[in-house]
Amino acid sequence: MIKTLRPQNYNEALHVGHFFRTGTPVVMDLTELPDAEAKQFVDFAAGLVFGRRGDMDRLSPKVFLLMPAGMATPARDDA
Amino acid sequence: MIKTLRPQNYNEALHVGHFFRTGTPVVMDLTELPDAEAKQFVDFAAGLVFGRRGDMDRLSPKVFLLMPAGMATPARDDA
Repeated sequence: MIKTLRPQNYNEALHVGHFFRTGTPVVMDLTELPDAEAKQFVDFAAGLVFGRRGDMDRLSPKVFLLMPAGMATPARDDA
Repeated sequence: MIKTLRPQNYNEALHVGHFFRTGTPVVMDLTELPDAEAKQFVDFAAGLVFGRRGDMDRLSPKVFLLMPAGMATPARDDA
């Protein structure tokens, strides 16, 4: 299961952290946020992912995939 | 042991992450950074700490203590 989150404000960074911390891959869709807030999410997610030895991939300019440690990023050519 | 880090640029966020991830409390001294970069560090550290269920305390406007999970913050009145 992959959880997709479309945060509306920075407080929702905790939702991203919550799902990721339980081992769920998270698609973090920041397209509804202004650039400054999107940047804050990216920095938060970078720390989150680093802390748990996961990976972060940019799927589009404002959409990111956060993968927990030990999970392979889904193959792009499956789509 | 507490590791004190005084990052000079955002790349050194990885040093903060590295020590914290191994269970070392980190004092993150951002006094040498401009506000915009200091803010990035704080967001990175927030993610890092959340991901590992630790705690972050602000010791002064630009100095933060990152405590790993299960470690008590040193009592302030010991100083």
